[in-house]
Amino acid sequence: MKITHFVLDVDGVLNTGHFIYGVEGKMFKVFGPHDKDGLKLLDPHMKIHFVTADKTGFDITRARIINDWGFSPDNLSLVVEGARLQWLRNNFDVNTTAYMGDGYHDAPLVKAARIGITPCSGRIECKEVADYITDSPAGSGAVLDAALYILSKIDV
Amino acid sequence: MKITHFVLDVDGVLNTGHFIYGVEGKMFKVFGPHDKDGLKLLDPHMKIHFVTADKTGFDITRARIINDWGFSPDNLSLVVEGARLQWLRNNFDVNTTAYMGDGYHDAPLVKAARIGITPCSGRIECKEVADYITDSPAGSGAVLDAALYILSKIDV
Amino acid sequence: MKITHFVLDVDGVLNTGHFIYGVEGKMFKVFGPHDKDGLKLLDPHMKIHFVTADKTGFDITRARIINDWGFSPDNLSLVVEGARLQWLRNNFDVNTTAYMGDGYHDAPLVKAARIGITPCSGRIECKEVADYITDSPAGSGAVLDAALYILSKIDV
Amino acid sequence: MKITHFVLDVDGVLNTGHFIYGVEGKMFKVFGPHDKDGLKLLDPHMKIHFVTADKTGFDITRARIINDWGFSPDNLSLVVEGARLQWLRNNFDVNTTAYMGDGYHDAPLVKAARIGITPCSGRIECKEVADYITDSPAGSGAVLDAALYILSKIDV
Repeated sequence: MKITHFVLDVDGVLNTGHFIYGVEGKMFKVFGPHDKDGLKLLDPHMKIHFVTADKTGFDITRARIINDWGFSPDNLSLVVEGARLQWLRNNFDVNTTAYMGDGYHDAPLVKAARIGITPCSGRIECKEVADYITDSPAGSGAVLDAALYILSKIDV
Repeated sequence: MKITHFVLDVDGVLNTGHFIYGVEGKMFKVFGPHDKDGLKLLDPHMKIHFVTADKTGFDITRARIINDWGFSPDNLSLVVEGARLQWLRNNFDVNTTAYMGDGYHDAPLVKAARIGITPCSGRIECKEVADYITDSPAGSGAVLDAALYILSKIDV
Repeated sequence: MKITHFVLDVDGVLNTGHFIYGVEGKMFKVFGPHDKDGLKLLDPHMKIHFVTADKTGFDITRARIINDWGFSPDNLSLVVEGARLQWLRNNFDVNTTAYMGDGYHDAPLVKAARIGITPCSGRIECKEVADYITDSPAGSGAVLDAALYILSKIDV
Repeated sequence: MKITHFVLDVDGVLNTGHFIYGVEGKMFKVFGPHDKDGLKLLDPHMKIHFVTADKTGFDITRARIINDWGFSPDNLSLVVEGARLQWLRNNFDVNTTAYMGDGYHDAPLVKAARIGITPCSGRIECKEVADYITDSPAGSGAVLDAALYILSKIDV
């Protein structure tokens, strides 16, 4: 199988999905330890793109993905959830794309992508259409699980 | 079934119920990713009202519900737990109200409401009287589960 | 049964046991929503006393128990874990005391007390000697579970 | 069995592995309550050495292990994950060393050490080669479990 892109949602996929609030609003998100290992394994084989609908927490997401991991800002898109399927179709070839998401509005993208993945901690709506449900929950290695699965499916 | 209002407790329902303390007291609460999707689905069909007994953490709750989500302050009430059943009866018609709560003192309201809901992470006292126990724990989509359940029961 | 005192460990009993660290050290602890309800139920029937071995996080514990809940500083003791059994025997009549703890060094106190309780999230060493293991984990209602259990056993 | 050293990974072993991010980057890690008890039990019998690959969070790790627990900075090494097996072989005799790790790149070290341990919350790659999988997850007593296991195996 030929996969050229791995597109993944951020909140509930690369982190636990929890938003830690203080009196001044959204302050923190909870990322996990194994996912960078997974992205490094995939990196030589395909392009990696992150998508988030979280505007108020965008700078927290950026701190992890761009500042600490060194991905380009071009690889992180802010797309509201209702418009996400159209955005995927406009910017990627779904026949060579793996998509990983966990939310109610991610289910159509999980279904549309050549490889659709959801964490075991994801919504039932995603699980019903996913090709692969990870063993590890989001924020505890779900993206490494996904990376190993994709590697096992692609032509190398 | 006709439901005009969805009244929901905040701590342990819209968030994990955890209070993160520092030396200066209650600093943070842990909200989740899917619940806004649920409230948006319900919004065209009924009025949504939030109730909390947490005075010291009220401004944290307000940051999520009013500042970030844009609900009116009129939709968020501070009611001590012992007085909560009387408050529900005084301000809502329980025969057309869905109530969701997780605590020891929420159980009578879960029982009194036309639709009584508790998260799977809620107290046993609520589970014993609930019409519906969500599949997802609080802070991980319990309110989206509740919204989908209510939508499946109302006349539309 | 006559119980005059409920003595309870703090970390891993009244909170999840997690210590959230930043570069300046121990910053936060994670308390839960239901335990105050339990302590209020017990309050008319017995004296409540808290014990902790955590010196560096003592001010966080104080913020919850003394500042927010209004307990007297006399009801909160700092006792190193190895000295805890002797401290219990010196300050309480174990035949009329309920003790709740979760750690390796709590097990002898759980065993010695008239009613010994540990959360389901507690250490195996405590579970092996406890009279009652709560259904709820620490930080999610374990102390309310304990309070309801004690109330069911005492003469009222 | 003769064990002279206990070498343990930090993130996902001594803490939950979660990295709490704010807009300024990695801010907090989540340590647990029981592990110090375990390290104290081992301390008279062998040398304890900590290893981490986390550069951006190194000062948080140092706050726990060196500042609060009083270990020497000589006992904490920063080693990138790919180089970790060579580092272990260069600095320790694997035939008298116990190693505990949880990540994808820890698996070869868990396999190489005389006693290889992984938390029940660790990666499947570690579990497949471990001599012992702890009952408690990381950040909730996994290192105390490991210490008790090692004590049961060594000549004393």
